Amino acid sequence: MINSKMYELGSRRSVIREIFEYGKKRKAEIGEDKVFDFSIGNPSVESPEAVADRIKELLEVRPSTAVHGYTSAQGDPKARQAIADDLNRRFNTSFTGSNVYLTCGAAASLTISLRSIIDRDDQNVMVFAPFFTEYRVFIESMGAQISVVPASFPKLDLNLEAFRKMINEKTVAVILNSPNNPTGVVYSEEQIKELSAILEEKSREYNHPIYIISDEPYREITYGCKPPFITHYYKNSIICYSYSKGLSLPGERIGYILVPDVMPDWQKLYAAVCGAGRSLGFICAPTMFQHVITKCAPLTSDLSKYAANRELIYNGLSELGYECVRPDGAFYLFVKCLEEDANKFCMRAREYDLLLVPSDDFGCPGYVRIAYCVSADTIRNSMPAFKALAESYR
Amino acid sequence: MINSKMYELGSRRSVIREIFEYGKKRKAEIGEDKVFDFSIGNPSVESPEAVADRIKELLEVRPSTAVHGYTSAQGDPKARQAIADDLNRRFNTSFTGSNVYLTCGAAASLTISLRSIIDRDDQNVMVFAPFFTEYRVFIESMGAQISVVPASFPKLDLNLEAFRKMINEKTVAVILNSPNNPTGVVYSEEQIKELSAILEEKSREYNHPIYIISDEPYREITYGCKPPFITHYYKNSIICYSYSKGLSLPGERIGYILVPDVMPDWQKLYAAVCGAGRSLGFICAPTMFQHVITKCAPLTSDLSKYAANRELIYNGLSELGYECVRPDGAFYLFVKCLEEDANKFCMRAREYDLLLVPSDDFGCPGYVRIAYCVSADTIRNSMPAFKALAESYR
Repeated sequence: MINSKMYELGSRRSVIREIFEYGKKRKAEIGEDKVFDFSIGNPSVESPEAVADRIKELLEVRPSTAVHGYTSAQGDPKARQAIADDLNRRFNTSFTGSNVYLTCGAAASLTISLRSIIDRDDQNVMVFAPFFTEYRVFIESMGAQISVVPASFPKLDLNLEAFRKMINEKTVAVILNSPNNPTGVVYSEEQIKELSAILEEKSREYNHPIYIISDEPYREITYGCKPPFITHYYKNSIICYSYSKGLSLPGERIGYILVPDVMPDWQKLYAAVCGAGRSLGFICAPTMFQHVITKCAPLTSDLSKYAANRELIYNGLSELGYECVRPDGAFYLFVKCLEEDANKFCMRAREYDLLLVPSDDFGCPGYVRIAYCVSADTIRNSMPAFKALAESYR
Repeated sequence: MINSKMYELGSRRSVIREIFEYGKKRKAEIGEDKVFDFSIGNPSVESPEAVADRIKELLEVRPSTAVHGYTSAQGDPKARQAIADDLNRRFNTSFTGSNVYLTCGAAASLTISLRSIIDRDDQNVMVFAPFFTEYRVFIESMGAQISVVPASFPKLDLNLEAFRKMINEKTVAVILNSPNNPTGVVYSEEQIKELSAILEEKSREYNHPIYIISDEPYREITYGCKPPFITHYYKNSIICYSYSKGLSLPGERIGYILVPDVMPDWQKLYAAVCGAGRSLGFICAPTMFQHVITKCAPLTSDLSKYAANRELIYNGLSELGYECVRPDGAFYLFVKCLEEDANKFCMRAREYDLLLVPSDDFGCPGYVRIAYCVSADTIRNSMPAFKALAESYR
C-alpha cells in the first residue's frame, strides 16, 4: 500500500544526485581538491552582502513574530511590489504586485503553474530537447503527458519545424528555458518571435490558449546577450523565477510566478495559481527570505566569476579537441562525448576523477553536462584530467 | 484552458482567510485594539532568542554558499539527526536521521505523506470531525476520497464506533490530529489503543497496511497532559510535524516527516516519501532554518503564555454562559453557538467586532473556533463584547 510511482521516483535517484553522492565519497577518499566535480548546479559565488545585512536588520528591528509569521498565500505585498518594480525597471513592463505570486523556488513555480493549467490526463505539455530532467517528473506528476521536441543540431536552439508538426489540440503549454539548462544556450529573438507566431496560430486553430511557461532561473546569468523578455512577444506567458542562481540562495527556496497583466483574463489564471499552490501544500514562501527579496530583488551575486569560468572551460576544452556548444548564459557547458554512449563516457571520465552528467535524461544522448559553477582552480586543475581522458580515446 | 478545480480553490478563499482579510480592513477603520481577531492560528509568542542567535552565528561563521546552498532532498544529515535525538530523548524511541525527511512545513508534510501512499482514486483517507479544513483539500488533491467520521458529542474525542463501521478495504490511511485543531482536544491513551486495535484488525482483514498519518504541529502545546506518542501504539504511523507553533516559525516553512524504524519495511515508504516530495516540486526544506533546527530542535517558545490565555478565555466565556470544550492543548477553543447556524452567529459576533470562525468547514456545524494565540489584553478586552453578544440572544 505504497504509491509505486513515488517509490520508483524516490529510490531510483536522479543520475545527477547519484554522481553527487559518489563525489562526496570519493572526495573523502582522495581529498576534496583531487575530485573535479562538475555534476551539480549549486552556485559557487557568495550572495551579495546585502542579503546577510538585511537578515540581521530584520532580526534587530522587528519582533520575531513579524519576521517569521505567515504572510498571505501570495506573499507579502511589499515583496510582490518590489519584484514588479524591478521587472518594470529592467524590462519596460507595467506589472504590479498583483501579478506576482511568491513561491518556494523554481520547482514549486513549475508544479504550481502546471497544476493551474492541466485539467485532463490526455493533455500534453511540450518541452524542447535538451531539457532539464525534472520537467518530465513535474509534467507527469501534475497529470499530463510530456511531448519532447527533438534537439536541433548543431546549435541546440529551438527546433521549430519539429515543434510545428508535433503541437496538437491537446497541447496546453510549452516550457521554455532560456538560458538553458543543460546547454547554456539563449534562444534568439527571431526564434522567440517565430515560436510566438506558431502558438498564436495554433491557439486560434484549437480555440484555446496555449501557454508558454518560461522557466528563467538563469535569466541574470548571461554573457554579453540579453534573453528576450517573453511577455513582450507572447501574452499567454507565465514566468517562473527563482533567486537560487542570481542571488546564490538555492537552498532557501524563494522564487515567484508572474502572471502578466497583458494576458487576457490574467486574474483567472492567477486565482488558479493560488488554488494550485494550496492544493500541493504550499502555504506561503519562506517569510524571512520574502523580506530579503523586498530589499534585494534588484541585486545579484558577483556573476562575473561565472563569465571567467566559462572562458576558462570553453577555451580549455575546445583546445583539447572537445566539441562544445558555446554557452551564452547559465553556468553549464554541453560537450559532445568521445564515444556514442554518454553513460560509458562518464564512467570512463570518472577514472580520471572527472564527474560529468550524461545527457540521456536531458533528452539528447551523446553529450555530457558540465556545471562550471565551481572555483576557477577546479577548472584549471581539471585540464590534465580532461587531456588524459581525450588521449585515452586516441 | 485553466484547471477549474484549482480556480475554484483559489478564488473561493477559505473562510478563515476571508475573515482575516475583513479583520485587516476593520482594524484600519476603527483601530487595531478595537477588533478582537480570533480568526487565525498565527503564534503570538516570540521565538526563543536562540533562533536569532543561531541565524547570526551562521551568517558570521559560514560562507553564504554553505548557509544557503542545497542540502540533499531529505535534509541536512545533522538536522535530521538532531530531530531524531530530540524525539528519542523525550519519547524513548530509537530513531536515527534516516527516519527523518525535512519538509517545508506541516502542509507539505501532509501532501507528501498522502502522495506517497495513495495509489488509486477509489481509495479513501479517513478523518475525525471536527478536522482541520485543509485536510479535505490535501486528500482530494492527492487523488483520494475523504471519509469523514462524524463528531462524538459532547467530548469531541474519537468516534470509534462510527470509525469501525465506516472503515473499508479502500481505506489506506487515517489522519490523526492531537492536540486537535479546531478543538484543542488531546485524545486519550485509551482511545489511541482502541483505534490501533481496530486498525490492526482491519489491516489483517484487508491484507494491506492502513497508515495513521499523525499531524502533530501542536504536540508541544499542552496543558498538564501528554499526548500519547503514536509509534508506541501503532507501527504503521507516519508523523507529520512542523516547527510553526512550537518555535513560532509559521512563515519559515520548516517541519518534517518521520517514517519510524518500527514500521515494517519503513525504507520503502521512506523512498516513496522522497519520490512524492520530488514530484510535488519540493527540492529541499529551507536550508537556513534546517541549520536552525540542528541547534534548536529541543527548544520551544514560552508556551506558558498560551496556558494563561486558555485560562482567561475558557473561564471568561464559561462564566458568561457559553458552552466550551475545555482544551488540553493547542491554542483553540471550540464554543457552541447561541443559534443553530454558525455562519449567522459569526456575522452577529462581527457586529461586536468579534472575529470568530464558523465550524461548518471543520465538519461539525453549530460551533465557532476561537484562536487564542493573541495577547492577554485582547482576551480581557473582548469580554464585554462576548457579554453583549450573549445578551443579544436573550
